[in-house]
Amino acid sequence: MLDQDNFTEARDIGADLRAAIAAGDAERIAALLDPLPYSEALREFLALPPEARDDVLKLVPVELAADLIEEAPYEMAAELVERLEPERAAEILEELDSDVQADVIGEMDAEDAEAVLSEMDAEDAADVRRLAAYEDDTAGGLMMTEVFQFSDKDTVGKVLRALASDDEDFERYRGQHPYIVDDAGVPVGVVSLRGLLTAKRSSNLTEIMVTPLTVPVDMPLEKLEDIFNDYPFLGVPVVDADGLLVGVISRSAVADAVLERSESESLKRQGVVGDELRSMPTWLRSRRRFAWLSANIVLNIVAASVISAYEDTLSAVIALAVFLPMVSDMSGCSGNQAVGVTMRELSLGLVRPMDAFRVWLKEISVGVINGIALGVLIGVVAWVWKGNPALGLVIGAALALNTMLAVSIGGVVPLLLKRLGQDPAAASGPLLTTVTDMAGFFFVLSFATLMMPWLI
Amino acid sequence: MLDQDNFTEARDIGADLRAAIAAGDAERIAALLDPLPYSEALREFLALPPEARDDVLKLVPVELAADLIEEAPYEMAAELVERLEPERAAEILEELDSDVQADVIGEMDAEDAEAVLSEMDAEDAADVRRLAAYEDDTAGGLMMTEVFQFSDKDTVGKVLRALASDDEDFERYRGQHPYIVDDAGVPVGVVSLRGLLTAKRSSNLTEIMVTPLTVPVDMPLEKLEDIFNDYPFLGVPVVDADGLLVGVISRSAVADAVLERSESESLKRQGVVGDELRSMPTWLRSRRRFAWLSANIVLNIVAASVISAYEDTLSAVIALAVFLPMVSDMSGCSGNQAVGVTMRELSLGLVRPMDAFRVWLKEISVGVINGIALGVLIGVVAWVWKGNPALGLVIGAALALNTMLAVSIGGVVPLLLKRLGQDPAAASGPLLTTVTDMAGFFFVLSFATLMMPWLI
Repeated sequence: MLDQDNFTEARDIGADLRAAIAAGDAERIAALLDPLPYSEALREFLALPPEARDDVLKLVPVELAADLIEEAPYEMAAELVERLEPERAAEILEELDSDVQADVIGEMDAEDAEAVLSEMDAEDAADVRRLAAYEDDTAGGLMMTEVFQFSDKDTVGKVLRALASDDEDFERYRGQHPYIVDDAGVPVGVVSLRGLLTAKRSSNLTEIMVTPLTVPVDMPLEKLEDIFNDYPFLGVPVVDADGLLVGVISRSAVADAVLERSESESLKRQGVVGDELRSMPTWLRSRRRFAWLSANIVLNIVAASVISAYEDTLSAVIALAVFLPMVSDMSGCSGNQAVGVTMRELSLGLVRPMDAFRVWLKEISVGVINGIALGVLIGVVAWVWKGNPALGLVIGAALALNTMLAVSIGGVVPLLLKRLGQDPAAASGPLLTTVTDMAGFFFVLSFATLMMPWLI
Repeated sequence: MLDQDNFTEARDIGADLRAAIAAGDAERIAALLDPLPYSEALREFLALPPEARDDVLKLVPVELAADLIEEAPYEMAAELVERLEPERAAEILEELDSDVQADVIGEMDAEDAEAVLSEMDAEDAADVRRLAAYEDDTAGGLMMTEVFQFSDKDTVGKVLRALASDDEDFERYRGQHPYIVDDAGVPVGVVSLRGLLTAKRSSNLTEIMVTPLTVPVDMPLEKLEDIFNDYPFLGVPVVDADGLLVGVISRSAVADAVLERSESESLKRQGVVGDELRSMPTWLRSRRRFAWLSANIVLNIVAASVISAYEDTLSAVIALAVFLPMVSDMSGCSGNQAVGVTMRELSLGLVRPMDAFRVWLKEISVGVINGIALGVLIGVVAWVWKGNPALGLVIGAALALNTMLAVSIGGVVPLLLKRLGQDPAAASGPLLTTVTDMAGFFFVLSFATLMMPWLI
């Protein structure tokens, strides 16, 4: 059992590790990495140059290599595995559960994936191919094919012997209950530990089993969340279109997928589509980020055209140029707050697209209060700074109005995008910013045009 | 067992529900809400006006009320419970596990919390008071006090009888193994299911137990993540400073806490501090959002002062005003992408504050590529739009440089804030934006001042 001090103190093993790799000392490498928590072992491993990483994965015992691969995000795991000989890659992947295998292989280039699959055990490879065909965030994409499974002819004693034997490990199955299938492969029952312990060993499992809750392979993550939320089960059997048992989805697989979705959405809201990691090739990272930025630049040009239309007003009152970015930025911030709250309530399942009007009412009440407060604040600043009360009025009124507009859009747009089947995480921000920029510039410059006699 | 159609189709029960509440028909209310997944039941419940919600919680069976309270985020659950009579509130809370009780009561006003605690079972109330004293994201704050616990004098038979009896439910303990404590209350062992099934019923538990991995009450969430990552355990016993067993932390409690932290950080990055929900009072939502906005407005004024310093340049070349917000906004976007990736890598445990230089190298390589690409793009736009190649050069060069600066700051600042013990989620964005705004304005306006002969 691992010593707890390992969790409280991180030693710097980088130099030792490099030396061991240079010396090709497999035992020493394993001795350095093995005692670390997986996350630290991975971090030390990633701090190595790519060739040294390859060496580590080639040299260390296959279990340790598999631990490192399993701990890495899938995209990174795929990259690491692609660099290895297919034989070694297959050997490492064989150590992992089928769902992890499928996720890693699913991220690999088709050619590399084929090379590795052809080196794997035929049955495992078939499982991976089958799993890879399912959509990521569905029961099929998240399930494992390892099922703690018995026939409806089996007895209680057989299950107890399996539990007591060395090759069946309750935890390997992530807390699965024993499932009973009929001759066709349809899950017909599940037995509880209590049932097993209170029944006679000679009893047939059908005597103590209850009908299991099953989910179809195409059930989306959101529904799976609901199910694990409503039932205390650690695993739920998954059936295909014919009702046959094809795998089991575990509570922890769903929890991991939910967390990953949350992180990925959060990244998309920052303008990073495609779960970037810095270990990815620079050109790929640049290209993905640039794709989003170049769409954004178009929106920015649209917004800036509003300023361009009012160049006369601007040259008459050059101080306006000082406040234009401020009004658009502050409104953008207010709107982003509303986007954040709506995205959170969406992910908590507290709102649905049909609630848009109720959300708007809640937002506009905050928008009126904060719009007026911010408007007064910036109005006074503008007045005092530039010594012109009319300028304060123009800027303050523009920010107040634009804040109300921004929170309205920010609160509601994610819901509308969701209803339209679009991804609210990636699109809400740019849409919001463009509208609030345009409106902010328009409010400031058109109010200024109206108030021109008092401004100059 | 619940019919699966409930998960695939949402019926609109709002009108029926309102009618049942108006009629005070408790049975009908329960009949409408009970078959729904918890998340949908909660959504229907929240769509009701506050008084109707109170009625529902008063009228329905206490188990259903507890399900609704448990499904709600804690802040919301606390609000709902505060509105009830303390007797009813206590009755509902008694249905929940100790960790949930403590979380909900911890969010209540001290006075209301006391009123409810005094109505609760004395032992439960003492547990809640004890749990409430621990920090939120530590083992103590996340553990439950319900432990599947035996004495070192007990036999295997006793555990098997407990497992087979009706009051011990494996799943109620969220998959805990049986823990063995000595007379003093120190956890000395844990037994596996395999051990229980292969040993004689008359054996003493000490014969088959192994030393358990334990964690101290003050272990932070990050370390707990590592532990559950490294071991397949569904639960880990928690000990106090004297080594006594005080609770068990479950895998799912850690997973939930990690998800909550991720959502909360994501919200903070959008400028919402304090896990806002729209059911909270308007003034509270306004005040929290305003606190962040008003700090931001100060930063905006600082940035705008750069523009103000160059008013002469601006009035000579008014077209610059069109591009100022564009340069600052685009750089902000590039920087935010870098912030997003660093925050993700921090939460995946792939980087640490000490990796700042390595992160910067990775960022600047993307920054150079995207800076040049964006600079050329916007430079050409400015040239063609305003018919002035020098303007294109000024704007393009400014954006290129500022993009490189922005990704450098965006990639590294979260790490520096973390090292300084600050919260990178809340502070990275505003810091980044202020610096990139100032630098963007400065680059555009100072380059323009230098290039003035070719611009006018």
